[in-house]
Amino acid sequence: MTANTVERIRHQGLRNKIMSAEQAAELIQDGMTLGIAGFTGAGYPKALPTAIAERAKAAHSAGKPFKINMITGASTAPDCDGVLAAADAVAFRAPFQSDPGIRNSINAGNIHYQDMHLSHVEQQIRNGFYGDIHVAIIEAAGITEEGKIIPAMGIGHNNEVLKAADKVIIEVNAKQNEKLESMHDVYFDVGTPPHRPAIPLLEPDGRIGSPYLECDLNKIAAIVLTDSFDRNSKFADPDENSKRIAAQIIDFFDHEVKAGRLPANLLPLQSGVGNVANAVLAGLLDAPFDNLTGYTEVLQDGMLDLIIAGKMKSASATALSFSPDALQRFNDNIDFLRDKIILRPMEITNNPELIRRLGVIGMNAMIEADIYGNVNSTHVMGTKMMNGIGGSGDFTRNAFFSFFVSPSVAKDGAISCIVPMVSHHDHTEHDVMFIVTEQGMADLRGKSPRQRARLIINNCAHPDYRDMLNDYYDRAEKAAAGLHTPHILSEALSWHQRFVETGDMRIK
Amino acid sequence: MTANTVERIRHQGLRNKIMSAEQAAELIQDGMTLGIAGFTGAGYPKALPTAIAERAKAAHSAGKPFKINMITGASTAPDCDGVLAAADAVAFRAPFQSDPGIRNSINAGNIHYQDMHLSHVEQQIRNGFYGDIHVAIIEAAGITEEGKIIPAMGIGHNNEVLKAADKVIIEVNAKQNEKLESMHDVYFDVGTPPHRPAIPLLEPDGRIGSPYLECDLNKIAAIVLTDSFDRNSKFADPDENSKRIAAQIIDFFDHEVKAGRLPANLLPLQSGVGNVANAVLAGLLDAPFDNLTGYTEVLQDGMLDLIIAGKMKSASATALSFSPDALQRFNDNIDFLRDKIILRPMEITNNPELIRRLGVIGMNAMIEADIYGNVNSTHVMGTKMMNGIGGSGDFTRNAFFSFFVSPSVAKDGAISCIVPMVSHHDHTEHDVMFIVTEQGMADLRGKSPRQRARLIINNCAHPDYRDMLNDYYDRAEKAAAGLHTPHILSEALSWHQRFVETGDMRIK
Repeated sequence: MTANTVERIRHQGLRNKIMSAEQAAELIQDGMTLGIAGFTGAGYPKALPTAIAERAKAAHSAGKPFKINMITGASTAPDCDGVLAAADAVAFRAPFQSDPGIRNSINAGNIHYQDMHLSHVEQQIRNGFYGDIHVAIIEAAGITEEGKIIPAMGIGHNNEVLKAADKVIIEVNAKQNEKLESMHDVYFDVGTPPHRPAIPLLEPDGRIGSPYLECDLNKIAAIVLTDSFDRNSKFADPDENSKRIAAQIIDFFDHEVKAGRLPANLLPLQSGVGNVANAVLAGLLDAPFDNLTGYTEVLQDGMLDLIIAGKMKSASATALSFSPDALQRFNDNIDFLRDKIILRPMEITNNPELIRRLGVIGMNAMIEADIYGNVNSTHVMGTKMMNGIGGSGDFTRNAFFSFFVSPSVAKDGAISCIVPMVSHHDHTEHDVMFIVTEQGMADLRGKSPRQRARLIINNCAHPDYRDMLNDYYDRAEKAAAGLHTPHILSEALSWHQRFVETGDMRIK
Repeated sequence: MTANTVERIRHQGLRNKIMSAEQAAELIQDGMTLGIAGFTGAGYPKALPTAIAERAKAAHSAGKPFKINMITGASTAPDCDGVLAAADAVAFRAPFQSDPGIRNSINAGNIHYQDMHLSHVEQQIRNGFYGDIHVAIIEAAGITEEGKIIPAMGIGHNNEVLKAADKVIIEVNAKQNEKLESMHDVYFDVGTPPHRPAIPLLEPDGRIGSPYLECDLNKIAAIVLTDSFDRNSKFADPDENSKRIAAQIIDFFDHEVKAGRLPANLLPLQSGVGNVANAVLAGLLDAPFDNLTGYTEVLQDGMLDLIIAGKMKSASATALSFSPDALQRFNDNIDFLRDKIILRPMEITNNPELIRRLGVIGMNAMIEADIYGNVNSTHVMGTKMMNGIGGSGDFTRNAFFSFFVSPSVAKDGAISCIVPMVSHHDHTEHDVMFIVTEQGMADLRGKSPRQRARLIINNCAHPDYRDMLNDYYDRAEKAAAGLHTPHILSEALSWHQRFVETGDMRIK
């Protein structure tokens, strides 16, 4: 592959920067803060993380400290987060992860993790909230004659770390389709407050920037050639529960369109990561809506298939995260798809200005909701980090409609996703409009906490937990000091505690 | 006053609509949803609420039901919220209140209250999330020859309820300064998603709309003449604690300016309602910053005095809420102030697009924060509503810097404002950048939950509670199933429960 991959670096001078991952990793020192590309298993560096992990292991063997701080776009993969965690090479991690190795280290207290809204990360890097960014490590599909960078399957925070970092390492990956060139839209003019322009994006498929990333060529310290696929995780086929959740949301859309409160092609759709969210999109394949648009963070199989089927006319995202089958369909259809998919920096895909302006419909998975409409997206039993909030807050808070979806129970019924009080709050009662489980949907708009409680219990909770929830609520209404949000404080988190102790939220 | 007040209605035809409050109140029926003006005790109707309350009392005496649903801009006053609550005339209330009568009815379970972000209210009214708006009742300083409405001391949601309501009642108040004309900037072109323009406001003091509110003149069913002051609550003079909180924030600003990370005139300032927030602004009178700007929700005494003193060049808000003394200063200086104060719809003052673009510094009071940086702004001991989230979420989430301030203890030390887990979550760990008490400041940016915990305990908690908090945290680190956010679930809310039972969070 090497000769062919070298040709992807059209800028002659930059070819002199080609070196091995091991050589490039020599640039990385203990205590450095790295801006590492990667978004939902797409566009992350494939070679440097392993080389850095080897350096860490060697240092540790010699009794020396070696840990980095890493700020990514979002989640990466076993050959990035995984190898670094296994080498105990990470001190601090932000803003989103999903790798089991990293997760375990976070929950064991070995890694400090800041779980952060993705729309804020670039601004906070730019303004020094994370301190200096010593090295940026990004993946590219190629480099132009002028030294401009052709991004790979995702952009994430690359635009910002290329600017902020003292040095830059670029991996050019032969496995990335060369026809990705021109699918990206990198907007540079974010400005400095208080004097900033309006972001001139007025339609979900608008293009307002450049197809290329850029950086000072003198900062490029190394180019490494790779030939590895992205993570490409397989999706589960939608199960009965997911289909029931999807059907309810689609019915609601149909009802709103017929009532004249929603355009016939709906509003731009955002869909979170995961099987249930993917099922909603799969459901739209057979729904009576055409000319759909997507304005989302990660474009996965569901949205790809809507575009290929001619149901969705365009989709905007910061990364493409496909199963192996969908990747094949993407590559097979890339000439058709090139003007219909727009990949942007995550500061733009997740920007509150744009989500609010476009009136995005946000649909995100949750771990649990409580009877008053608060949602936990991140913590298992209040203390263990799962993945992170990602962009769910960016979209939920600014969405025209905000949906949270989950099966009503998990672990064979031992966990209810509807609880008296969520064990961690990521989305507050002020933001959550619809909760949907396979049992039903609760429309919380314009309702007080007490009005929401009965609706959520009766519509969304699993029958096994409905009496327990009604019993809690009835007693809370009698016992609470205030009846705006009736709670029994000594019992509000007892379901989680019971699960920790007995493995079941139900009283045996 | 009547002859003089009649002249404020320059449109001859509309003078025929003048009637008494009692006559106008005949338009209001049981079950109606009313859009009632009012924002932090400014610009609310002075006569209609009492007349509606009398109708309710008469109906109730006759054994008939009479309750309304009321959606205001924010809080009103005893002669609006107060009289309606006393008459048991309110079924549903949104989005913010602070009147003791309404609050008690909410906490007794008699009124359903939806505590809602102010930036979302107009959009949600416009799109029918609250159902039909039957009557809008607003206050005006006058009506022009063309029938355009000169707003009073606030705009709030008036622009939207004038459009949405079937009928409109206008109170023209002789006590409002006629020179208010031209201080307002009503932006109409919010559009319908997905095809919406960018909001063209690029500077905090820009003007992008009309000085007048408008509505279909045929919908104006009644005009009522009044002659009453706004609520005009007095502020407490800044106490020692407030001054210490203010000094730390100002020191931080100074440090950031010297480090080149903040402009010499800072960034547009938002300040929440209340004595501590007002103290921060008072502190800026003597701070080394000039040409300050304000981009806030309610302009109170502190910001007014900064403008009069020549320290602040302009301020944007949706309402003016002054103490009686400050009102006098405002009226005395109104010719100087007219082009420096811009009053906008609350959809614009609180808009995520604009707060993010301008890089607003958000400073808001809190009830309590927890050791991981979550903030409760609304609930006393988890169940009782205090006032509401107001615009604190709108600003915090989109701010360049977000501060939360409070004295470290309340009720003579019986309540700690730093607790193991907040009893209600309004602002999550993802959004809160700085916590400041008279004890010190915690800078939470770029930190994991465990890094935040020690900082908040050691810097912000009152010495009487520091050992208790460190003890909780130490034990949580040993006992928790996950160490990302260590908690002892059975104990996390026990401080609140202890206070409910014993009147003191401390163990006796």
